[in-house]
Amino acid sequence: MKVVKTIRELRGLLASLRGNGPVGFVPTMGSLHEGHLSLIRKSREACGCTVVSIFVNPTQFGPHEDFIRYPRDIPRDLALIGSLADIVFIPGEAELYPPGASTWVTVEGLSGILEGGDRPGHFRGVCTVVMTLFHIVMPDSAYFGWKDAQQLIIIRAMARDLAMRVRIVGMPTVRDPDGLAVSSRNVRLSPADRSAALCLSRSLHHIREMVELTGIRKPELLLAEGKKIIAASVGVELQYLEIADREMLRPVNKADENAMVLGAIRVGGVRLIDNIFL
Amino acid sequence: MKVVKTIRELRGLLASLRGNGPVGFVPTMGSLHEGHLSLIRKSREACGCTVVSIFVNPTQFGPHEDFIRYPRDIPRDLALIGSLADIVFIPGEAELYPPGASTWVTVEGLSGILEGGDRPGHFRGVCTVVMTLFHIVMPDSAYFGWKDAQQLIIIRAMARDLAMRVRIVGMPTVRDPDGLAVSSRNVRLSPADRSAALCLSRSLHHIREMVELTGIRKPELLLAEGKKIIAASVGVELQYLEIADREMLRPVNKADENAMVLGAIRVGGVRLIDNIFL
Repeated sequence: MKVVKTIRELRGLLASLRGNGPVGFVPTMGSLHEGHLSLIRKSREACGCTVVSIFVNPTQFGPHEDFIRYPRDIPRDLALIGSLADIVFIPGEAELYPPGASTWVTVEGLSGILEGGDRPGHFRGVCTVVMTLFHIVMPDSAYFGWKDAQQLIIIRAMARDLAMRVRIVGMPTVRDPDGLAVSSRNVRLSPADRSAALCLSRSLHHIREMVELTGIRKPELLLAEGKKIIAASVGVELQYLEIADREMLRPVNKADENAMVLGAIRVGGVRLIDNIFL
Repeated sequence: MKVVKTIRELRGLLASLRGNGPVGFVPTMGSLHEGHLSLIRKSREACGCTVVSIFVNPTQFGPHEDFIRYPRDIPRDLALIGSLADIVFIPGEAELYPPGASTWVTVEGLSGILEGGDRPGHFRGVCTVVMTLFHIVMPDSAYFGWKDAQQLIIIRAMARDLAMRVRIVGMPTVRDPDGLAVSSRNVRLSPADRSAALCLSRSLHHIREMVELTGIRKPELLLAEGKKIIAASVGVELQYLEIADREMLRPVNKADENAMVLGAIRVGGVRLIDNIFL
């Protein structure tokens, strides 16, 4: 595994590695966990060369969000990646945002709902940096976790709309044994908050069970039950809980096999998201 | 020269032609004239394979603009290209904008001034379609005329900001013997309007002569003289006349060798632009 910091170095290295087969790419903000590692392993399995990027992207954080407090630990990240990747790209900010940069990529509609409703500008930052990274790495496949379902769906729309050649691969959410979806932000939870945070995944699983066991399909009924679980959890603030189709996140009238439940909570100053397929 | 209509055909053909050397790309809206042909010839000279696209891009026209009346003549275009290009790509609208497409590329700041001030959304449409075409063709070099100076500068900014590998090459404005900058829209001018329209290029050349002969460098003084020429032209409506730096179109205090003059007029229902380096 080689660590590179500049676009020039990365392109030079990739030029010689492309002959090994398809290039797989896993863009990350570091603080790697089992979710990221599952993406990297999948890329390694499917591709001749795997590139991981680590960049905490400032433009996807709002002015009152946790850009400064976002966990960072590059030495640990590199140890976790070990020999799973061929190249780890750790650019400085000026490498991805040259002085005076003022170009933005937006996916309208999809970027304004759910996460985008609570975090204006978030997906504009995500799309812009992912597009730039795609131009740099020129991957055949790029790997994203279903944990960030809206991000995955938006990046897929962006790639399709702008005729990008890359294949966007979604991988299942990885969970800790207690059900909490793994996330870089989990390290910022106190033991009590972490325990309270479990209400989100419990709520999602409860909704899925209701569908499976009772056959109830009305989103309002299902969501009302799910919200009760979150409301009963002390110190947890619900941001949203919605049922939508898993192609384009459109609202649905019936929770069928094309639907998913998506939720966001705040607990102990940390914002967490999760979702589940029905 | 081969004509293709789908992304799939184009990619297939290009895969076999890339071995010939760098790929040059000239995106056009058809109705080709000497300006376009100078770009195509330059690409042919510099590259191993030249792709020309013809697509009247709906998203860069405002609701009250001339999308419907924009001149179209594919058979004539193909005859003019002849063997100058290897591939002519003539996509249908659904090829570049798949159903539900909602992704936009914008260069903030630069897109809101001059042409962008008069034509809101114009450069968003230009950037989005050019980015899509770049993803499809993956050219080493792309050729644009300085006649559309702001478009060239914006596309250069977009390519740099998003780390695109393509080199953006600007080529000089081509003029008819009477000084009129060649443009696809010129065919829509009556003989009287065409004669009146000459005031724009005369005004630009007059400003350059003033700088060269009198040493006057104050933008206000130069522009006032230039505007007199346009005001004296019956039936011509000035849209703007500005002096700006030719890197980023920032306003300048002094018309020096990094500056250019840019103007737009309306005459006989046709909007024309032109510019000149100082």
